Amino acid sequence: MNIYKERIESLRALMAENGWDAALITSSDPHSSEYPAPRWKQVEWLSGFTGEAGDLVVTRDDAGLWTDSRYFIQAVKQLEGTGVSLHKTRIPGAVGIPQWLSENASRVVIDGGCLSVDAAAEIRNAMEGVGGSVVDVPDYLERMWEDRPGLPVSVVTTVGADIVGESRLQKISSLRKFLMVNDCDAILLSAPDEVAWFLNVRGSDIEYNPYVLSYLFVSMDRVCWCIKKGEGLHSDPDTEDSFAELEADDVEILDYDDVYSVLSVESSGSIAVDPSTLNAHLYKYVEDTFAEGNIRCIQSPVPLKKAVKNSTEIKGLREAYHADGLAVEKFLFWLDRKMASGERVTEKEASDRLGAFRAEIPGYKGDSFACISAYGENAALPHYSTPEEGSAVIEPRGLYLVDSGGQYLFGTTDITRTVPVGECTALEGEDYTLDITGMIDLSMAVFPEGTPGTRIDAIARYPLWTSRRDYGHGTGHGIGFYLGVHEGPQTIRQSANQQPMLPGMVTSNEPGLYREGLHGIRHENVVLCVEDSENEFGKWLRFETLTCCHIETSAIIRDMMTADEISWLNAYNQSVFEALSPELDAEEAEWLRKKTLPL
Amino acid sequence: MNIYKERIESLRALMAENGWDAALITSSDPHSSEYPAPRWKQVEWLSGFTGEAGDLVVTRDDAGLWTDSRYFIQAVKQLEGTGVSLHKTRIPGAVGIPQWLSENASRVVIDGGCLSVDAAAEIRNAMEGVGGSVVDVPDYLERMWEDRPGLPVSVVTTVGADIVGESRLQKISSLRKFLMVNDCDAILLSAPDEVAWFLNVRGSDIEYNPYVLSYLFVSMDRVCWCIKKGEGLHSDPDTEDSFAELEADDVEILDYDDVYSVLSVESSGSIAVDPSTLNAHLYKYVEDTFAEGNIRCIQSPVPLKKAVKNSTEIKGLREAYHADGLAVEKFLFWLDRKMASGERVTEKEASDRLGAFRAEIPGYKGDSFACISAYGENAALPHYSTPEEGSAVIEPRGLYLVDSGGQYLFGTTDITRTVPVGECTALEGEDYTLDITGMIDLSMAVFPEGTPGTRIDAIARYPLWTSRRDYGHGTGHGIGFYLGVHEGPQTIRQSANQQPMLPGMVTSNEPGLYREGLHGIRHENVVLCVEDSENEFGKWLRFETLTCCHIETSAIIRDMMTADEISWLNAYNQSVFEALSPELDAEEAEWLRKKTLPL
Repeated sequence: MNIYKERIESLRALMAENGWDAALITSSDPHSSEYPAPRWKQVEWLSGFTGEAGDLVVTRDDAGLWTDSRYFIQAVKQLEGTGVSLHKTRIPGAVGIPQWLSENASRVVIDGGCLSVDAAAEIRNAMEGVGGSVVDVPDYLERMWEDRPGLPVSVVTTVGADIVGESRLQKISSLRKFLMVNDCDAILLSAPDEVAWFLNVRGSDIEYNPYVLSYLFVSMDRVCWCIKKGEGLHSDPDTEDSFAELEADDVEILDYDDVYSVLSVESSGSIAVDPSTLNAHLYKYVEDTFAEGNIRCIQSPVPLKKAVKNSTEIKGLREAYHADGLAVEKFLFWLDRKMASGERVTEKEASDRLGAFRAEIPGYKGDSFACISAYGENAALPHYSTPEEGSAVIEPRGLYLVDSGGQYLFGTTDITRTVPVGECTALEGEDYTLDITGMIDLSMAVFPEGTPGTRIDAIARYPLWTSRRDYGHGTGHGIGFYLGVHEGPQTIRQSANQQPMLPGMVTSNEPGLYREGLHGIRHENVVLCVEDSENEFGKWLRFETLTCCHIETSAIIRDMMTADEISWLNAYNQSVFEALSPELDAEEAEWLRKKTLPL
Repeated sequence: MNIYKERIESLRALMAENGWDAALITSSDPHSSEYPAPRWKQVEWLSGFTGEAGDLVVTRDDAGLWTDSRYFIQAVKQLEGTGVSLHKTRIPGAVGIPQWLSENASRVVIDGGCLSVDAAAEIRNAMEGVGGSVVDVPDYLERMWEDRPGLPVSVVTTVGADIVGESRLQKISSLRKFLMVNDCDAILLSAPDEVAWFLNVRGSDIEYNPYVLSYLFVSMDRVCWCIKKGEGLHSDPDTEDSFAELEADDVEILDYDDVYSVLSVESSGSIAVDPSTLNAHLYKYVEDTFAEGNIRCIQSPVPLKKAVKNSTEIKGLREAYHADGLAVEKFLFWLDRKMASGERVTEKEASDRLGAFRAEIPGYKGDSFACISAYGENAALPHYSTPEEGSAVIEPRGLYLVDSGGQYLFGTTDITRTVPVGECTALEGEDYTLDITGMIDLSMAVFPEGTPGTRIDAIARYPLWTSRRDYGHGTGHGIGFYLGVHEGPQTIRQSANQQPMLPGMVTSNEPGLYREGLHGIRHENVVLCVEDSENEFGKWLRFETLTCCHIETSAIIRDMMTADEISWLNAYNQSVFEALSPELDAEEAEWLRKKTLPL
């Protein structure tokens, strides 16, 4: 019997024992992390599905995985033999988990520790609407999952105001002002990116994101940081130094589970919580501990403050994108030479080589996400996962796509380049040109202050749309400063998100174009929103491109672009050459000179 | 003493008598009409302000009018000497009436008959938030307003399924299906456009909109239409015929105030109401009459059904835009000749001439709104009201703008053309070109099904934005079929409105550009959303232009447009010439041939 089938059967036994007729297993952890630590890979443990987004529902005689188009193909493969069927999300007519549960179950068990308050409320509302009920049992898989990993523990480091532009004490003081204005005595933060930004700390509890899983309680006179202290690790000299620095700033360092006692002790006052990130289990504790009128459900002020980079951060980011661009250029030169020499490399060898170039950069802390190194039809999967073993050989024809980024002490990067590695088809040329045109049109955009990303998304899509082509993902996401490569609150996508673009926000600009079985194209620059000018029509904003790496022009069909678009591209490539060539060796510089000749 | 000052003082006396410390006077009527009948021009009666949007607040020692940028200049002029100050809305940092009242009053009187449920709830929430209160006194101005006009009464006509494509009985049956699906026994409609569309009736109770002010109650076995029956008018033969036709379809024709007794009689069942249009006073009656659990606040299904035109309506609209375009061409030819002859005409003479051309069209029922005939700097007011007396003379230089439309038995039209009437400045040429480019870019747009107007608004603005120019109004509004020239639910504007564009929707495409004291430009075509194609990327929609009237090319700076934009313009003008020239006289046709030569 398939191992996953067996595990699902044990879960069904547990369900029967407890009178639950459906179980929801989410791929989230108690901190709404983007990449949960192994301890919370419960969906993978139960079904074998390894995609980053996917929730599982098990009933007495049914089991289903809900995931989006990025993982359809992967899910079908990985779920084979498990008895778990695929439910596609974000497609027309999709039935979400809350509705499905309300139609197929009457008593649902959830693990409130792995669902945000908002997500749990959705389930609860749907079930109550049909007279059903929801049982919240923390860690209910624990008794079946014998070798379940523990809480992650990693070395804790700090970043100073010289790097991030604002000291911990300044951040504490401004959060206290926020509490005063909002008539709250305290706030509880649990999202790891918010805590890392706020305390100026970094760790490596989870993959790619330099976070420490923890809870943070801030009141007018206390800052309590509740983190798992590993055996022996507390005596790691870096962590000890970090703790000492924090304690000098009056931050109390407590154990992970001490969050409960802190809340109890402070329960006479009022408390602000963000239901979009706080887990339902801890929220329940807050409800049980605080008086009803003293709980304020708010939007945490941290994500917006974090998204608007200060001048120190911007200075660091410029350096990061310069150094990162240099690494990518060295990589593209290396690949070009390999292809020209007739020697063949695999996708994995290519991504390893790129990683090695990045690792040479002082301040490099690791990759900001798993490099997508994809040749030919593999690139048609926007979230292709390059296999460790047996990845495809890059053949001297068509297109190769590489989407990668680094974590540096002075910034987080994200860049995608698609390059021809040989002759391209007419369709590849057309798609390549339309896609780069969309990226350029958005790069050239000027827009009034107050404009949210959702209202400029169509600027990048317009050239594709008029040719009846499109891409299923967003055009842009926020990017952190030595933090997550994906952060909010701004986005450039087809959503209802009304967060205006603000000067200082750093966002990706990455239209794509994918044809299953043929090719995939994506061009991604990262842009900084800056003030442009003010006139009788109001204040104007625009984007300044941070990414510093040439865009290949050989695959472009010139006639499909306007004069303005061509000018932008030529000027961009010229500026890349001028910025990077002094730091390249003679052969690389000459190669880049040719690559950046005007179209 | 200024008459308005006097009236405000009488109101203050009334307020003092009743212990109200603030009074809110809205410019709405009990039906959320766009143009209230004289009976509900209470803001004008009290303050002298004649703009279409503006609410008044009077306190013991203060009085203010809240209105938007369309009326700032007009309001300042009209409020002079009244003691009423201007509060600007829709500007950054604007304080709305609910907030202002909560900060400046404790006991506010409203006339719940002239506020929608939603609007009244906003005031109530704001006041209750600060421990204040709201008193709802219907028609509280009545005792001061001696010669207040009565309810309007007009001839009632009907439109058949041959014209509107769907019979009254079909509409009744489909609304009953909606009620069943939504588990409601009945629905109460009060918006005049919804009632007119639903019953296939037309009237002229209010300006420009062919509506009858009334209430409509529809249950599984009754359709009760409550309308004011005028003395003698019930015996008007057209109205009698209409009533007979309705009664033959089992529509009960009751008096306006019978809505209360119908609600009482039917109060044992459940009822659906739309709080965005129902007035707060009638809603209160529903609350008092029906059991709490039996009132369902819903979004009325009528606006969306009304917005998606059927094939009969589309056929009618094509004819309407053809005939209307012909009238506008004849007018533009007439104006051109006048200018060439050296004879001068005023803005008012021009709009009268245009009206006369329209009046010749069979099926013409009047204008769909007050014609904006604006020369030079007057056109910089997007909602300029051409004066009856003393309007400006159109001089042989610069630009003339005319925004107008007709009501026809087979459709409602709306068109704006801006034409050079002599030499233009370089700035006029630039602005003219950017504006027409925006309109063309949106006309050429292809977009995935499901896209709301807010996500394509930037396509029209992009050419203006990149030149740091913009316009303060929306790009497009829905247009009715022999109904309102402004209707929802779709819009193309910078709002959070997520209503997708659907095939069959008719929407304006009207970017503008205004420079106070200099000139104003607007090009407006009306477009029909149609299915384009379906491919691996999904289903595609696009716009088909209904408006059939050439776009003047002489003011265009050709180098500022792309080849695609120029092709679109040339093809459009050519199609206008081909469609209209057979119906023009020889001289007009030759003139149009020259006007439509390729740019």
